[in-house]
Amino acid sequence: MATPAGGGAALCGPLLDYKTEKFALTRNRRVGLLHRLLQLAVLGYVLGWVFVVRRGYQDTDAAPRVSVVTKLKGVSVSRPEDARRRLWDAADFSRPPQGENVLFLVTNFIVTDRQVQGTCPESPSVLDGICMEDVDCSVGNPVVHGNGIKTGRCVMFNSTHSTCEIFGWCPVENDTLPRKPLLAEAENFTLFIKNTVNFTKFNFSKGNTLQTNDPTYFKTCMYDPFFSPSCPVFRIRDMVEAAGETFGALALMGGSISVRIEWDCDLDWPAAHCQPRYSFILLDRRYNFRTASYYWDSKRQHYRSLLKLYGIRFDISVHGQAGKFGIIPAAVSFGTGIAFLGTATIICDMVLLYLDAKADLYWKEKFEEAKPPKGKKAAAAEAQRAGQDLGDAQQCALE
Amino acid sequence: MATPAGGGAALCGPLLDYKTEKFALTRNRRVGLLHRLLQLAVLGYVLGWVFVVRRGYQDTDAAPRVSVVTKLKGVSVSRPEDARRRLWDAADFSRPPQGENVLFLVTNFIVTDRQVQGTCPESPSVLDGICMEDVDCSVGNPVVHGNGIKTGRCVMFNSTHSTCEIFGWCPVENDTLPRKPLLAEAENFTLFIKNTVNFTKFNFSKGNTLQTNDPTYFKTCMYDPFFSPSCPVFRIRDMVEAAGETFGALALMGGSISVRIEWDCDLDWPAAHCQPRYSFILLDRRYNFRTASYYWDSKRQHYRSLLKLYGIRFDISVHGQAGKFGIIPAAVSFGTGIAFLGTATIICDMVLLYLDAKADLYWKEKFEEAKPPKGKKAAAAEAQRAGQDLGDAQQCALE
Amino acid sequence: MATPAGGGAALCGPLLDYKTEKFALTRNRRVGLLHRLLQLAVLGYVLGWVFVVRRGYQDTDAAPRVSVVTKLKGVSVSRPEDARRRLWDAADFSRPPQGENVLFLVTNFIVTDRQVQGTCPESPSVLDGICMEDVDCSVGNPVVHGNGIKTGRCVMFNSTHSTCEIFGWCPVENDTLPRKPLLAEAENFTLFIKNTVNFTKFNFSKGNTLQTNDPTYFKTCMYDPFFSPSCPVFRIRDMVEAAGETFGALALMGGSISVRIEWDCDLDWPAAHCQPRYSFILLDRRYNFRTASYYWDSKRQHYRSLLKLYGIRFDISVHGQAGKFGIIPAAVSFGTGIAFLGTATIICDMVLLYLDAKADLYWKEKFEEAKPPKGKKAAAAEAQRAGQDLGDAQQCALE
Repeated sequence: MATPAGGGAALCGPLLDYKTEKFALTRNRRVGLLHRLLQLAVLGYVLGWVFVVRRGYQDTDAAPRVSVVTKLKGVSVSRPEDARRRLWDAADFSRPPQGENVLFLVTNFIVTDRQVQGTCPESPSVLDGICMEDVDCSVGNPVVHGNGIKTGRCVMFNSTHSTCEIFGWCPVENDTLPRKPLLAEAENFTLFIKNTVNFTKFNFSKGNTLQTNDPTYFKTCMYDPFFSPSCPVFRIRDMVEAAGETFGALALMGGSISVRIEWDCDLDWPAAHCQPRYSFILLDRRYNFRTASYYWDSKRQHYRSLLKLYGIRFDISVHGQAGKFGIIPAAVSFGTGIAFLGTATIICDMVLLYLDAKADLYWKEKFEEAKPPKGKKAAAAEAQRAGQDLGDAQQCALE
Repeated sequence: MATPAGGGAALCGPLLDYKTEKFALTRNRRVGLLHRLLQLAVLGYVLGWVFVVRRGYQDTDAAPRVSVVTKLKGVSVSRPEDARRRLWDAADFSRPPQGENVLFLVTNFIVTDRQVQGTCPESPSVLDGICMEDVDCSVGNPVVHGNGIKTGRCVMFNSTHSTCEIFGWCPVENDTLPRKPLLAEAENFTLFIKNTVNFTKFNFSKGNTLQTNDPTYFKTCMYDPFFSPSCPVFRIRDMVEAAGETFGALALMGGSISVRIEWDCDLDWPAAHCQPRYSFILLDRRYNFRTASYYWDSKRQHYRSLLKLYGIRFDISVHGQAGKFGIIPAAVSFGTGIAFLGTATIICDMVLLYLDAKADLYWKEKFEEAKPPKGKKAAAAEAQRAGQDLGDAQQCALE
Repeated sequence: MATPAGGGAALCGPLLDYKTEKFALTRNRRVGLLHRLLQLAVLGYVLGWVFVVRRGYQDTDAAPRVSVVTKLKGVSVSRPEDARRRLWDAADFSRPPQGENVLFLVTNFIVTDRQVQGTCPESPSVLDGICMEDVDCSVGNPVVHGNGIKTGRCVMFNSTHSTCEIFGWCPVENDTLPRKPLLAEAENFTLFIKNTVNFTKFNFSKGNTLQTNDPTYFKTCMYDPFFSPSCPVFRIRDMVEAAGETFGALALMGGSISVRIEWDCDLDWPAAHCQPRYSFILLDRRYNFRTASYYWDSKRQHYRSLLKLYGIRFDISVHGQAGKFGIIPAAVSFGTGIAFLGTATIICDMVLLYLDAKADLYWKEKFEEAKPPKGKKAAAAEAQRAGQDLGDAQQCALE
């Protein structure tokens, strides 16, 4: 009987009927035990590895905003073989002076004073400059990896070598390096690295320096991971040795060291637990560059002082990651881990259907045949067969 | 009857049989309604949160290639107490001059002219330099955080202080800062920041400057997020105030400001909608460094002019993210969200099997026992029992 | 009979019973075939796209630690219109000289020698400096985008222009650029880029230079992607042309080129297969900055030499990604791909239940009604109906 309410129910009915999957309940204790063990294994993986070890319940920010300011301090006296002794302080040995995250400390140098524009013999250490006679020096061409343009003449550099005459800054640089680094005391210099990281996702900032009102604290302390982790003052020699080299070897021809500051902050703990780790990696065993200062003398002549500086280049890079509990990452990690339970079911089904003794029975129980319906005649025939079976059974009973 | 075709069908048969899960269709409207509500909730989460708010249907590129070029402009007159007035322009106050993403603007300075290598008293502001008599100054050791190497003599610095005599650049720097910043007009200087981001995944580039042929546009405009968002010219005072400080306070001892440019581009909209956001964060309240210029006088003596520069360091960092519709992220987000429907089923099954009034019945319907087959005797006995039940029923009917 | 062991079994029993899902086994070959085809498609996607093309079985590290050191080499003779010819070498044209990842090569310049602090007419190319009479020049105000502070007087700059007199570095710069780049030979200079990447997740480092003991190798080779891929020495002209410009056009007003080094390493192959790719992108067509050198003449007057340098700015950025087989990423990729098999099942179920000819039958097979149990009277009535049906059938048979 279709009433209006009944009509609505007829419409809603199929929509609100709840369909639940059917299961075959086997009493197979062996496969059941295997299933429970696999489920425990998955649960152990999810709770142990994903949650506890990998902190999968946390939201992460792996791209902090980073700021680095550095300051080199120290003094060293250099005594070049053919010059007076000279003191170098931070304004002299640290290039560039601004204190950025890439800085250079001079440890050795070759100085060529009072170069003026003119003609002179090329250096004999330049291959393309060696010559026997004028025709070896093609006029107007630059000397390959040399110091000037060839004038076309081959002249004597000294008693043993002849080189092409060039137009350029004269006299050319004498490329012979001092046998010992000229600023050997630089090993006792200190580098102060002030670093701030800001994890914008959590609005959390932290610096690597102690919050103190004592202006002399950073002038007296030195970094120690246990006793003074918030004093980022490093001795140059300590950094070079941490990178696996000796200062003397690196100071002669220069080198390049990467200073890595790594932050791994768990923001579910107090902020004080979040301290950076410093590591020092040797990148290169040679490093040098040339720089010039320009002068005018009293006769209005322009000249320059060329410095080939060898030293240690420090490349400070900061990497950080912060994590904090978040309901969505926790749910997603849990769900992704729990999805592995499906693997447990697949394995147990395989065992049940292919390996178990009663596999055939379980197969028939699991996969019920869907038979198409038969006509009335066939139904009557089946009933007749059923009745005959019953009659036979009754007869046997009555007999 | 096994025919060749039949043999092939016998092989393919089991492979092509389609197995579909069986469900128990309960007429439980309550649990059905709960199920539909939970499904609507999951669908709402997927469409509302994952798709609309978090734009989960988009492919993202969060690592653009970035380029920053800057230019400082302005002039300021400094009037040091003991020197003539002097005008500073961009070539003077901006270090380094190349216009990189880290730049420094001088706002205050201490100048020590005409330093030459020699011996002189250490500065009284250096703790390790203070002495009473010669034995306090160990010859040959550098003054800790000082300006030179001790000569072993304790000399008078002025009428009130005695300090160790040192070998170094003399006279030493007088560390007394002017009471007001010497380049106070620097607050009206302007910083032009030209920034380009390139999202390589989508081959999409955008700059933060207006595409214009008018060479005077950037000389007259100033940044405004509504009226001139494509004119990245910022006044120094505005940037400092946006960072939460006053220019006068920061200019005296220097400071450090981080300029963050953030791009969040939705490439499903026209490119013109993609504009950067600028924010200014104060990193530090002190910043200074020393730099030197070297000279030769007419008597061939080498001397230098030492400048201790205080000022504001600008650290420009660019971060960006672009998203564009992608069929695979859309499918993955949809699938991951839809997977939560499984949770709805689990909850409703729990309610049906443990909380509902007819829970026992539903349990039996859901979990059918898989019984092993019985022998013929047991089958006959069962048929007999069935027959007896039927006979009893018939007798009742006939009576 | 409840024994202790039996009690334990009674407790454990329900826990260890294994429940397996029931399936309806249809003999519907059409839907079965569709199902297998969809399964093959999903498998093909997982193995082909996810595993082979996207290398989904690999753990990835997309944030390597990067180090870049550069060196510019070459010489060029400049012949300014009103000055003697002068040779420029690397110490002259490369700013800054340290060889960082952002470097500048001078190709053109305007030099203003011997500027001293004083008063002089402003440049006529500055808009705010143009005047007719003194009242146009408000004393004490800086000239907007100019070179000094107005003194309040309007003076003649030359026979055609009158400009405000300013206090600043005098004489002001003459902003007229030479018609040809003064360092045109810079196109033959070479840039050596030494780059190291370190993928910390796999503890794998690689550099872009050949490991060789021959100190002259890098002085003679040039980069070629096939013949010398480990010689990162690039000619300036080649880089500019690779960026789509001609050197002459870029050298006049300067420009900015981004050099991108991209590493894509598959660590399941030998390390030698991992070579970087270089690409050059033009960022800007103008680039210049001003820098000054300061001097003292014999009369103790401070003066400076102002250089407006035009040139090409090279911005070297390194990006890299490394992948190595990992069991967990392989399992997760496989699982995530296999999850799509559920879609195949959903589609086939839809076809079976809505599109197939025997859809009704399959519906009834799939969704078994869960009926509540009836009372004894109803059971008897049902048996009676069953018996009557049987009796009718028997009667028909016997007749």
